[in-house]
Amino acid sequence: MPILGQNQYGKAENRVVKITRDGTTHHIKDLNVSVSLSGDMDEVHYSGSNANVLPTDTTKNTVYAFAKEHGIESAEQFGIRLARHFVTSQPSIHRARIRIEEYGWERIENSGEGEHSFVRTGQETRLAQITYDGDTWEVVSGLTDLTVLNSTNSEFWGYVKDKYTTLPEAYDRILATSVSGRWRFNWSDDDQPMPDWDESYEQTKQHLLRAFAETYSLSLQQTLHAMGARIIDHRAEIDEVRFSLPNRHHFLVDLEPFGLKNPTADEAVYFAADRPYGLIEATVLRDGCEAGIPADLTNL
Amino acid sequence: MPILGQNQYGKAENRVVKITRDGTTHHIKDLNVSVSLSGDMDEVHYSGSNANVLPTDTTKNTVYAFAKEHGIESAEQFGIRLARHFVTSQPSIHRARIRIEEYGWERIENSGEGEHSFVRTGQETRLAQITYDGDTWEVVSGLTDLTVLNSTNSEFWGYVKDKYTTLPEAYDRILATSVSGRWRFNWSDDDQPMPDWDESYEQTKQHLLRAFAETYSLSLQQTLHAMGARIIDHRAEIDEVRFSLPNRHHFLVDLEPFGLKNPTADEAVYFAADRPYGLIEATVLRDGCEAGIPADLTNL
Amino acid sequence: MPILGQNQYGKAENRVVKITRDGTTHHIKDLNVSVSLSGDMDEVHYSGSNANVLPTDTTKNTVYAFAKEHGIESAEQFGIRLARHFVTSQPSIHRARIRIEEYGWERIENSGEGEHSFVRTGQETRLAQITYDGDTWEVVSGLTDLTVLNSTNSEFWGYVKDKYTTLPEAYDRILATSVSGRWRFNWSDDDQPMPDWDESYEQTKQHLLRAFAETYSLSLQQTLHAMGARIIDHRAEIDEVRFSLPNRHHFLVDLEPFGLKNPTADEAVYFAADRPYGLIEATVLRDGCEAGIPADLTNL
Amino acid sequence: MPILGQNQYGKAENRVVKITRDGTTHHIKDLNVSVSLSGDMDEVHYSGSNANVLPTDTTKNTVYAFAKEHGIESAEQFGIRLARHFVTSQPSIHRARIRIEEYGWERIENSGEGEHSFVRTGQETRLAQITYDGDTWEVVSGLTDLTVLNSTNSEFWGYVKDKYTTLPEAYDRILATSVSGRWRFNWSDDDQPMPDWDESYEQTKQHLLRAFAETYSLSLQQTLHAMGARIIDHRAEIDEVRFSLPNRHHFLVDLEPFGLKNPTADEAVYFAADRPYGLIEATVLRDGCEAGIPADLTNL
Repeated sequence: MPILGQNQYGKAENRVVKITRDGTTHHIKDLNVSVSLSGDMDEVHYSGSNANVLPTDTTKNTVYAFAKEHGIESAEQFGIRLARHFVTSQPSIHRARIRIEEYGWERIENSGEGEHSFVRTGQETRLAQITYDGDTWEVVSGLTDLTVLNSTNSEFWGYVKDKYTTLPEAYDRILATSVSGRWRFNWSDDDQPMPDWDESYEQTKQHLLRAFAETYSLSLQQTLHAMGARIIDHRAEIDEVRFSLPNRHHFLVDLEPFGLKNPTADEAVYFAADRPYGLIEATVLRDGCEAGIPADLTNL
Repeated sequence: MPILGQNQYGKAENRVVKITRDGTTHHIKDLNVSVSLSGDMDEVHYSGSNANVLPTDTTKNTVYAFAKEHGIESAEQFGIRLARHFVTSQPSIHRARIRIEEYGWERIENSGEGEHSFVRTGQETRLAQITYDGDTWEVVSGLTDLTVLNSTNSEFWGYVKDKYTTLPEAYDRILATSVSGRWRFNWSDDDQPMPDWDESYEQTKQHLLRAFAETYSLSLQQTLHAMGARIIDHRAEIDEVRFSLPNRHHFLVDLEPFGLKNPTADEAVYFAADRPYGLIEATVLRDGCEAGIPADLTNL
Repeated sequence: MPILGQNQYGKAENRVVKITRDGTTHHIKDLNVSVSLSGDMDEVHYSGSNANVLPTDTTKNTVYAFAKEHGIESAEQFGIRLARHFVTSQPSIHRARIRIEEYGWERIENSGEGEHSFVRTGQETRLAQITYDGDTWEVVSGLTDLTVLNSTNSEFWGYVKDKYTTLPEAYDRILATSVSGRWRFNWSDDDQPMPDWDESYEQTKQHLLRAFAETYSLSLQQTLHAMGARIIDHRAEIDEVRFSLPNRHHFLVDLEPFGLKNPTADEAVYFAADRPYGLIEATVLRDGCEAGIPADLTNL
Repeated sequence: MPILGQNQYGKAENRVVKITRDGTTHHIKDLNVSVSLSGDMDEVHYSGSNANVLPTDTTKNTVYAFAKEHGIESAEQFGIRLARHFVTSQPSIHRARIRIEEYGWERIENSGEGEHSFVRTGQETRLAQITYDGDTWEVVSGLTDLTVLNSTNSEFWGYVKDKYTTLPEAYDRILATSVSGRWRFNWSDDDQPMPDWDESYEQTKQHLLRAFAETYSLSLQQTLHAMGARIIDHRAEIDEVRFSLPNRHHFLVDLEPFGLKNPTADEAVYFAADRPYGLIEATVLRDGCEAGIPADLTNL
């Protein structure tokens, strides 16, 4: 008889927006929250009995109620509160995983009496994943869709050549990628002091950007490792970083048929290709730590 | 026998990136260019004779060659040069329309020797459409995916109530939309001086944002009109503005079943809905001008 | 003072699913309905007065109520009923446009007692647009995302060659496109007998497919015209057809560096490219009729 | 010093189309192939030395060359050949993973001399993932975006009720989902006879559909388990099945304000919601087997 393996259930993509008024100055938090629960769930799979099942609709209600009752200090703190609630309040639920996407907004500078107008930044989406089994916490934060480009200081040569290799070596190329990154915190226990989640995020993003910008790159793998290592070196609260970096190829256009040199000393024209793309994925770990982030990153 | 009506053809979505080097400081232009041509094209439809057809592949080559040969000062200027080329160099082509999407980049501040690192801003996409028939120019610029939100100063009441009306009146609601806008310039002739396209774009975007922020709104239509009128009033080079504004509904969540008041004086929790959405579309015209932008906006 | 031009408003993308039970055999209709209204709307734009505005929320309610009260025989019939209602019941509304996307479902053959299980076909999306001004009807039907491919019987040569032309002529190529089509009916008046909308759709789709398959193509324009002409010739209820056909390029891969011939007599390997793509758009008209479908097709 | 963890690299989304001619009857295979390689890759991360790196461009070339040289019998067989090649031909590569999406086509019935016209089915996308470490094979096949719906024979009641529970129990509801499934074969060794991959896929899809249709459902978990168990019971070549099933909620519309009953005995009108959605994920295993498919499914 077939048996049940790993299983989880919940309500995905609860879109919650919270406005807080500080006099005429308003603040906004804009999240997409997904709840995933595991526990004593054999019967609902075998017989359809829902006796141990907290409805996914209830988990949705909880997200909205908690946003009002307890507020949203940060994505991570909000996820921790939700995960703790599900595991500690329901005997049948032994593990909760909360995933959050956060969208950034900045103020529209407007005249006069108050500040209640916002425009979405549109850059990266901030990510947080909180997992709790009643005993140990795992917090993984990250970001996706942060598109970066170096217009020089990138080479690619000295690689293996087999019978299917036609690629010419490159000594000055564009290096561009859309960063998807995750980093795991070493906070795992209620007895430890919590990191400042928002400050940690801002600093980590800056380290990532600067390492990308400052690395003279002989391969995208080298750049990836530099980004991860810089975060590990500068952020004591983070033990592991994983990146998935599509190599957004920019090909020099052959303009010789039209009597044009490309590139010239001071300018170059590229074709930005869609598919296929190189895909570079790796984990960078603090020495002595074990990896926890899976090889294939997923968002929600 | 069926006859041929309006027709056009070309190469869509040519992704061209140009890097210009000013010493160690680099500049980037990142465009998606679509070419559409019309003219003596009966035969290619009736018999398949391509005797009057400049291949779409050639139009692609022209985009890349022009990027190198003539540079990209602005999306509009680049489109004007391309449109003029196709109409004046090919006897069978009587009209050219160039559509351009432009993606914004900002510098990553990095140390040291130069400036060649960029991160995509990710906010709105800038649009330009240039049409030329050998005689008259039409330039329409615009933007899409600029998401804005006012957390107060929006009401909706006093509307028609029929037997299918259940909506309660609202005296303080979130007003949010993702702006898609187009504006038509009154520059139409090579004898007129050209506007400064980039400055016009930046100013128009700022007027749009400030009108959104500063309007106390009794309807999204009123906000739309304020945005369009402010542009017409402040930018003499623009005669017509059209907006398509989805009303991104944010519904107050009913938290009464959980003993929670929502909203309270200083905070409120909303559900951000996907579909359906209100859709408000209108043109604002300089007095005495005729409309040229079609009722249904399309991007590429 | 800036003045108001063309404007329209309504509720977009109302997702309505209707199940009808015929004993244990069920039927499903799955629509995405968008309502757009115009009329005496100056004041809502100028002052924000909603005195002439039927709320978009009411139009949503009406869609769902009509689905129950009057049923959904076909997308076109449903849209006609809705458009008539808005124009005839609201003095301030002078024009209604209803756009509908319809998703196809087929039965999962299951054993036993009844028929209530469906799988989405996933092929094209059916489209209908109904416009009514209280006097005259315009019905445009169509489809989108119908992807077709001929693996031979397509050539491309004899075209104009200018200094930017590098494309080699092709005497046997793949011709592939994703069809977006619209066709306008000559039914415009309540006194005329209505077409059988569903039968018309099925027949038109078949004519389109067969014309694509049977045309030996010297250009995608020729294929487009053959598809339109065949519909005009066979379907007396249709006066105008417009297609927007992206040329989904399939490039023969150069395998010579690996000592492989491509193609050989009996097989060929292609790279299916994303961007850029040729884009061919044209209208085919019944002789003596005037065009009504705009040059740029939009869906919802 | 930070250290390197799990890493992999390759070329993603190689779009390969192969046409085979059998007289005037043509056949088509349409794949999206992603290559991911692991091995002695420390140096490329630490110093940027590419001495052990087979370029991703070479892996792309290999995909196209193999499509010509060896043909594409099935996605799985094609992936096995590629994985074997990379691991056995490159000393630095110790593991290869090939992921394939396959798009379905059916013939357009056309008259006359041959069969070379196709229309994309548009239903599910077929998936295959082949992993090889030089010793052991893991083949996981699957599908995504197969949307199914039962219009009755689904209930949901008897669940846990906490203070955030407001959901009313349902005794006759729509059950709809978009199936994403993966199944792992017990073929792992070159000495074992290979399954007939295409027949296995077709049969597995049919079992999945019939189990969905024939299960009287008290929870989506029960339906999921029935689908997985039926596959395990009927397909000896498969040891493990995992599904990720979004619960595509269809809410009965409240039409009471308009004096309409919904549902009535023979018809019902629903609002098909986008977000949030329930998300049910679980593995079904052959007794005695260990799980290999990760908890979070990813496509490419």
